[in-house]
Amino acid sequence: VNYFQIDKNKGSNYIYQQIYNHLKKLILDGKFSTHYKLPSKRELAEDLNVSINSVANAYEQLLEEGYIYTVERKGYFVEDIIQFISQQSTKKQDFPEDLKEHTEPKEGWVSLSHISTDSTMFPYHEWVKCIQKAIKHHQQDLAKITHPQGPFLVRKSIANMVSLSRGVSCEPEQIVIGTGTQPLIQQLMATQPEKIKAAVENPGYARIYKLLKGISIDTYTVNLDEQGIDVKEVEKLNPNFLFITPSHQFPTGTIMPISRRIELLNWASMSKDRYVVEDDYDSEFKYGTDNIPSLQSLDRDQSVIYVGTFSKTLLPSFRMSYMVLPPEILRGYRQKYSDWIHGSNTLDLLALSYFIDSGEYAKHIKKMSNHYNMKRKELIKELEGRFGDKIIIKNVPAGLHFLAELKTDKGYQEIEKRAKKERIEIYTIRRFMLEGENETKGSIQLVLGFASIKTERITEAVNRLYRVIYE
Amino acid sequence: VNYFQIDKNKGSNYIYQQIYNHLKKLILDGKFSTHYKLPSKRELAEDLNVSINSVANAYEQLLEEGYIYTVERKGYFVEDIIQFISQQSTKKQDFPEDLKEHTEPKEGWVSLSHISTDSTMFPYHEWVKCIQKAIKHHQQDLAKITHPQGPFLVRKSIANMVSLSRGVSCEPEQIVIGTGTQPLIQQLMATQPEKIKAAVENPGYARIYKLLKGISIDTYTVNLDEQGIDVKEVEKLNPNFLFITPSHQFPTGTIMPISRRIELLNWASMSKDRYVVEDDYDSEFKYGTDNIPSLQSLDRDQSVIYVGTFSKTLLPSFRMSYMVLPPEILRGYRQKYSDWIHGSNTLDLLALSYFIDSGEYAKHIKKMSNHYNMKRKELIKELEGRFGDKIIIKNVPAGLHFLAELKTDKGYQEIEKRAKKERIEIYTIRRFMLEGENETKGSIQLVLGFASIKTERITEAVNRLYRVIYE
Repeated sequence: VNYFQIDKNKGSNYIYQQIYNHLKKLILDGKFSTHYKLPSKRELAEDLNVSINSVANAYEQLLEEGYIYTVERKGYFVEDIIQFISQQSTKKQDFPEDLKEHTEPKEGWVSLSHISTDSTMFPYHEWVKCIQKAIKHHQQDLAKITHPQGPFLVRKSIANMVSLSRGVSCEPEQIVIGTGTQPLIQQLMATQPEKIKAAVENPGYARIYKLLKGISIDTYTVNLDEQGIDVKEVEKLNPNFLFITPSHQFPTGTIMPISRRIELLNWASMSKDRYVVEDDYDSEFKYGTDNIPSLQSLDRDQSVIYVGTFSKTLLPSFRMSYMVLPPEILRGYRQKYSDWIHGSNTLDLLALSYFIDSGEYAKHIKKMSNHYNMKRKELIKELEGRFGDKIIIKNVPAGLHFLAELKTDKGYQEIEKRAKKERIEIYTIRRFMLEGENETKGSIQLVLGFASIKTERITEAVNRLYRVIYE
Repeated sequence: VNYFQIDKNKGSNYIYQQIYNHLKKLILDGKFSTHYKLPSKRELAEDLNVSINSVANAYEQLLEEGYIYTVERKGYFVEDIIQFISQQSTKKQDFPEDLKEHTEPKEGWVSLSHISTDSTMFPYHEWVKCIQKAIKHHQQDLAKITHPQGPFLVRKSIANMVSLSRGVSCEPEQIVIGTGTQPLIQQLMATQPEKIKAAVENPGYARIYKLLKGISIDTYTVNLDEQGIDVKEVEKLNPNFLFITPSHQFPTGTIMPISRRIELLNWASMSKDRYVVEDDYDSEFKYGTDNIPSLQSLDRDQSVIYVGTFSKTLLPSFRMSYMVLPPEILRGYRQKYSDWIHGSNTLDLLALSYFIDSGEYAKHIKKMSNHYNMKRKELIKELEGRFGDKIIIKNVPAGLHFLAELKTDKGYQEIEKRAKKERIEIYTIRRFMLEGENETKGSIQLVLGFASIKTERITEAVNRLYRVIYE
């Protein structure tokens, strides 16, 4: 027998792996007949001038994977192995060019995105401390998968916090923690056995609109007036799930006044299957006056589903959101999701709980609120200084973005193309016009975020924006 | 005017909040007529004996929320506010008793669960260090939402790791990171425009079976023989998505031999729309011999979708899994999920990347592999010692659980009830028998996990198990 050679140089594979690989290849290539008797361990070891142990390990591995079999006191034999019918080689085939990712370097860009936040002022040190506390006190919990809605302890912290800050009254049982508003809404929709008719604001949050459409839910849009969603239109449409952003309409910024809120709640209370989903995505940031209490806090008939997030107050990359379910919907959720494995990292959630309970969360919001308001004022000042009467800013002292109308004959597509060239990240209202016409002759609307831009770059951003629109 | 009194005691609310709350209540209760002119700030301040500032702040807040309006140089007026039609009060209603959570204290329990892992030996210190590295180097990334498939950097680390450890050959582009196997499979299914016919192993992983049924996919079960899934049955059924666990069949533990693997791949390569989903849930733990290469590593026709997880190697509570998509499916994924917001915390993923790249991950697996094998041997020894010829253990040196058959006339329901009473967490095969009869006269089968039990509790666990079955 002289099947192959062994390379005993340093740096080559372990001897037993070489024997294993050679034999495996010979078997797969059909070089042995089926039931061929392999040399004994001693024979092969002598032939290859290696230790019996190396051969024994190789035989053991081949046995385990089913290449060979053994008959007691007779030796090792080659298994009856079927041949591959595919003519392709297992060697890596060329990866299709169109699927390759080419990340554009974003160096030199400035961003007026409404999505990003300021990550430089996050209290990482305190956050890591909370992680360490969670590790110290909850090792048992980390070995398991948690409750489908998230750990009770964490839901309790959130329930306390949201009651204080948003007037939301709920039990920890009613809270469902999720990895974002999208998956939570998807779960919410799945709890409904009957066919759903959904309505969203227009302009509005495009991702929710697309999500609902994507899971085949009848979804309609409702126009806004200066107080928010038009209740007359809602009444006419008669949806059973109405998605709104009353604290700071996305993207127009409108704060829904109390009268309109009561109108909406009255509409919802007229029928048992009408629900209002309150997406409270950035209500923690309210400048000048106190926060506006949530719609849920006014609800008397358990018809509001409150959705909150830590994406704006902590970091969008943390993916932590929650919803507060009325008892009737919670019951359906429990039935549907008893077997669901919760998707967030328990360690992060426990850290969040410590972060809230220790007061760090409230402290951080307060700090960021001052910081964001300063940037907001600065950006508005610069814009008004540079654009003069060519800009109308919808100056609502809340949230992390505002709407601005600019006089220009350029269309949205051109603006977006030019922005890319000027290396400024901006979002036009086009993205949020879910239905109907979005081009208005003589002016455009931009959704301008001020959370992520550095203060010292604001002038530069405004200059670039000016060039995008007027040069 | 003498509307209300102010409490100036320490510990009561801020003065302005008291004014705001009183006025709000009066307005909501209809105590003012519409367009009623409120006293001027100065008047009210004098009446209440408070500062003008306090009144100004209260008016400002009421204005912001739409309770009052202002007319320049005329003063503040009550808005035309609709009344609530609901007769319910906003006060917290009693939370339904059936929805309250009662967590049973698990003190004194021992667990032979296959789900939990040993969280006491996790290198928390090194993990926190990786988190700190990620914070130091990636603050910009944390301010944004990441790529739908997860950060490229992290996918690169995973691609390298899984190539080395499992022979899986792929580009980082092909990797989709997710918060668990369930949501990944759900996404995978959603990429398919055509009607899917799915098949799963029986007995098998019940959660995937339920998931597929739950999203209305035609799902069938295929029986196993001693080599794993029965290819004759697969051919007859002709599914286009076949879900298997070839490295360590769940729950029977069978390692699929090479010949069966080639048979399956040959079956898949006969038609372009046949895919095999390889759920490699615990293949990192292989005792005695080396790891078994993945099915994907043998695939020549891009028909295997590899699914890996960090639930067993790190912690199940971390919720980190990934799938490797063949180019054709990746193309569909990109179209469907371009707008998807990735669900994992970017900070955790970046920490994972450092954890893998620094070698800590491989080191940890090696350590745990020795540790788990020790516990496995100990549990088997104790079981065989206590049960004698009344137990047959399917002793496959892999994974974190094994199957055991025990002679008894008791049925599964009785066993499960008695286990609860004895405070031992065990899973019977009943849970994993997806179709067909699961009671066999004269014996029962248990899925026994050895990862989470403390070594010094093994004897106690075996004693309790004995009492469950024979007393």
